[in-house]
Amino acid sequence: MTVQQRPAAVTTGPIAGSRKIYSAVPERADIAVPFREIDLHPSAREEPLRLYDTSGPFTDPAVAIDLETGLAALRGPWIAGRGFAAIDARAVKPEDNGGAAGEKLVAPCPAARMVLRAAAGKPATQLEFARAGIITEEMRFVAHRENLGRAEMLEGAAARRADGEDFGAAMPAFVTPEFVRAEIAAGRAIIPANINHPELEPTIIGRNFLVKINANIGNSAVTSSAAEEVEKLVWAIRWGADTVMDLSTGRNIHNIRSWILRNAPVPIGTVPIYQALEKVGGDPDQLDWAVFRDTLIEQAEQGVDYFTIHAGVRLAYIPLTARRTTGIVSRGGSIMARWCLAHHRESFLYEHFAEICDIMRAYDVSFSLGDGLRPGSQADANDAAQFAELETLGELTRIAWDRGCQVMIEGPGHVPMHKIKANMDKQLAVCGEAPFYTLGPLTTDIAPGYDHITSAIGAAMIGWFGTAMLCYVTPKEHLGLPNRDDVKTGVITYRIAAHAADLAKGHPSARLRDDAISRARFEFRWEDQFNLGLDPDTARAFHDETLPKEAHKTAHFCSMCGPKFCSMKITQDIRDEAQRQAGMEQMSETFRASGSRIYVEEKG
Amino acid sequence: MTVQQRPAAVTTGPIAGSRKIYSAVPERADIAVPFREIDLHPSAREEPLRLYDTSGPFTDPAVAIDLETGLAALRGPWIAGRGFAAIDARAVKPEDNGGAAGEKLVAPCPAARMVLRAAAGKPATQLEFARAGIITEEMRFVAHRENLGRAEMLEGAAARRADGEDFGAAMPAFVTPEFVRAEIAAGRAIIPANINHPELEPTIIGRNFLVKINANIGNSAVTSSAAEEVEKLVWAIRWGADTVMDLSTGRNIHNIRSWILRNAPVPIGTVPIYQALEKVGGDPDQLDWAVFRDTLIEQAEQGVDYFTIHAGVRLAYIPLTARRTTGIVSRGGSIMARWCLAHHRESFLYEHFAEICDIMRAYDVSFSLGDGLRPGSQADANDAAQFAELETLGELTRIAWDRGCQVMIEGPGHVPMHKIKANMDKQLAVCGEAPFYTLGPLTTDIAPGYDHITSAIGAAMIGWFGTAMLCYVTPKEHLGLPNRDDVKTGVITYRIAAHAADLAKGHPSARLRDDAISRARFEFRWEDQFNLGLDPDTARAFHDETLPKEAHKTAHFCSMCGPKFCSMKITQDIRDEAQRQAGMEQMSETFRASGSRIYVEEKG
Repeated sequence: MTVQQRPAAVTTGPIAGSRKIYSAVPERADIAVPFREIDLHPSAREEPLRLYDTSGPFTDPAVAIDLETGLAALRGPWIAGRGFAAIDARAVKPEDNGGAAGEKLVAPCPAARMVLRAAAGKPATQLEFARAGIITEEMRFVAHRENLGRAEMLEGAAARRADGEDFGAAMPAFVTPEFVRAEIAAGRAIIPANINHPELEPTIIGRNFLVKINANIGNSAVTSSAAEEVEKLVWAIRWGADTVMDLSTGRNIHNIRSWILRNAPVPIGTVPIYQALEKVGGDPDQLDWAVFRDTLIEQAEQGVDYFTIHAGVRLAYIPLTARRTTGIVSRGGSIMARWCLAHHRESFLYEHFAEICDIMRAYDVSFSLGDGLRPGSQADANDAAQFAELETLGELTRIAWDRGCQVMIEGPGHVPMHKIKANMDKQLAVCGEAPFYTLGPLTTDIAPGYDHITSAIGAAMIGWFGTAMLCYVTPKEHLGLPNRDDVKTGVITYRIAAHAADLAKGHPSARLRDDAISRARFEFRWEDQFNLGLDPDTARAFHDETLPKEAHKTAHFCSMCGPKFCSMKITQDIRDEAQRQAGMEQMSETFRASGSRIYVEEKG
Repeated sequence: MTVQQRPAAVTTGPIAGSRKIYSAVPERADIAVPFREIDLHPSAREEPLRLYDTSGPFTDPAVAIDLETGLAALRGPWIAGRGFAAIDARAVKPEDNGGAAGEKLVAPCPAARMVLRAAAGKPATQLEFARAGIITEEMRFVAHRENLGRAEMLEGAAARRADGEDFGAAMPAFVTPEFVRAEIAAGRAIIPANINHPELEPTIIGRNFLVKINANIGNSAVTSSAAEEVEKLVWAIRWGADTVMDLSTGRNIHNIRSWILRNAPVPIGTVPIYQALEKVGGDPDQLDWAVFRDTLIEQAEQGVDYFTIHAGVRLAYIPLTARRTTGIVSRGGSIMARWCLAHHRESFLYEHFAEICDIMRAYDVSFSLGDGLRPGSQADANDAAQFAELETLGELTRIAWDRGCQVMIEGPGHVPMHKIKANMDKQLAVCGEAPFYTLGPLTTDIAPGYDHITSAIGAAMIGWFGTAMLCYVTPKEHLGLPNRDDVKTGVITYRIAAHAADLAKGHPSARLRDDAISRARFEFRWEDQFNLGLDPDTARAFHDETLPKEAHKTAHFCSMCGPKFCSMKITQDIRDEAQRQAGMEQMSETFRASGSRIYVEEKG
């Protein structure tokens, strides 16, 4: 499957039934955007279907994958033109790796990269470029990516837009680089893209673009090898994760992060307070601004693209959680709440927020303002603590914007269906339309083992209402650490939620894939149906459980009804007969013109 | 686990962590309604949680299960008081079993039951009794069942009602038998309960009651034994199916149906046109009123509780489907469309609808008016063909009501989120608030292998909007026949959707279970969390993959964070500290009184 010289140690090779292609940005032939294309059966007489592709070079058999050298620096030339200073990297300290030493120390990724930092005064972040009227290469890349590589407007795009309900979103029928720039300048979208992450294939997160999903990964209790950790990333993006958060704790996290970043074609997010806590022996009371600040710089220099910062957990809000059914369930939130209470002081994240902004701006690390007081149960949804924090996040958004930082806002959590829209509406109102990034929400608490599903319901809805990125939930939520299968299930489930949201919003290209698979289904093109699906391997395996023979893949029936009794077969017969009968089409036109009502009224 | 004398050949024994109880209807000590109760850990200091229980006597260790004698005739005494005539049963014909003979013939269930038929002029159906002002035992049973066996209004019920968004539903805070009667009389709810199905534990289907779910079962291509078929039913209701449709085709369906009905504590539905088609050799063109009528009587005498009748597929609507992306995807719909076109005649189901009503009334078989023209893809959702048929279903509803029959209406199918509510609104408007019974709907077509999830999103939403019963979809939808695991996954997924809908509607008792499990989660009562969930076995297995030791079941941490780093532990510490600190509660009160805004404004 691959031409690489040595085993990649991670999953490579194409996703079943599709091939990697690259499409150049029309006005910049040097910028090539990756997609997947699916060739359909000749009987379909259809062009190959092109899909958005998050999987990176790992699914390109022409690319040799070597984790030690890392991925090619796609953004290298773009960043080089921006005049950032190469600096001496912060020296790695033993505590960065949790004190791991000797045999227990995982070596860092040997891939060599300069460390860059932007000075004040000149544009450094995508937001600053956008405000200065400059269209970056990243903006061109994401525009072409959102258009699925089309050079012009898709036929019927306006009609599809009109067919949806967008709740005030303003998706264009065709995404231009200038539209991307304007959305970023307005704070309505972000491109998380650390200037120290040149391997990134940029993606845009905003209400007026395709809904994105995030998958969380993290090291296991028994420290696994660096390759195993990279494989978690590779596996998640193979199935469609647009961004990945590394939530590792414990030993070796600095060095393992270097392997992840040097091999990550997607934005990587972290929660720096987790590592800061490790550095003070796991005791929240011992945290302070110095250790946190140092951790921000450490991770920013490595190339992390966005940081979750729980600066909205203010001292005054903590008593609002005391009578909750499930208190504070966010890890970051509870760490900060513990700190505030122990010291009887305002959060150091809140007090030092402007300095945090200045650090993050210098590397273009985007904010993901954490919802440390999100509800952990239906009972606590939309309560005073949650909404007090959200208002503070709106206030912090404006501070971050003032200092040139890109911002998105994290959201709940556990919320019954009827309280979901209020979350979106309030977030839009108080956070100035900064992109919303929600965990689920879970629409009931009663199904441990199935919380990918309880939350997919809420995720699809809040995505429809305007959330820009959905953080996945796996079947192991509340119960344990997700394994490989759980990660895949979580990612596929959230691709469903995101796509259902795109369809309902009336995204101009969303229904192309549904229509292609529906035609394949109707025409019994089984292989096409498998390949056009989110998970061709599972679809094929399920089919083959009942009808394993190759011949059945083109048979004009399926296992549910059998050959004599197939509704799609009968419909095809109807259609054939309709064509044979002269005047049938005429009849149909007449019915359509007059509407169906007269036939109801005709009945005696 | 069971005290039965011989192996039951089906799954028996309690669901993990719960026990069967029976609660007598307050005003009728002779009517006992089954529930499950879950005992919580003593540290919880909570009453056992009582749950609605669909699983029948199979989960009661005190009941000896013998498939040959069938379940006890719970309704026997109730029905006996209604003066129905015992008739000579229609003689079984070879074609009833698809011509199976000799070794290939499955013997019928030997359980002996009289066959009853109601005469005209006296109330026979639940609708007729309701209109006559008579509260039947079935009505008392379902009222007590909906109240979870409470004798009086639940504390806080009104507040929970007010917390939801019910879109015009009118759920009472406490369900009285009189309320049930009035809802049935108005046609807004049905109790599918054939007078020849005395084994039934009645359930009510209507917008102002708990949302119900249906699971489909059917024989395999290689005819399995009768016990295997009964096991499919037992397995589906064990996990929460409120009704079961037997969609079997081919040989032995009459005799296998006898085993199912004599052992079914839930309403059984069928699609009689499937068996009628078998009787004419599988050729739709050979169908006629005589064979269909005979099949209705055959199945009604056996005790089937509701029939899907595709009488809305009218000749005039068929051309409206010719340009669809996926034509006609309903089996029943395509059979009738084929028939109409072949004969160039109006549907015999439509033309003989009044006679169908008279047959069904005589046994109190409820109508499930089939949506034979439902959309099979996002592209076809809410089109002219679909809505033309729906209007006809509204017309047929009134005819059926006029003739004393209970009616529900089937709905789609494949519908993007933004077009779901229009389905509910139109159904309410044109079908006079008869209960809606929908398949999904699937909110995208791109995920074969995961259509339980694509459809759970739509099912939860349409349930919230007012659908009374949700027909499950399994992961094998579009691909093959569901196996045991698929059925369980489908049922659990749909219990999630139904419960999420109940929560959002503001059902007065729905959140009790969420709150109990959330408290258990917060207090690290792992066993309680497992047992309170929809699938204790899976939750426990998932937990044990990471933390298998028994001691961890009471440990105050979980595998996601470990002991030092647990957000719930930290929250508990906060709470403890809050209690220690004098004045903390006072502070909290002050915050609550003044709202959170002043704290935002305080910041400089």
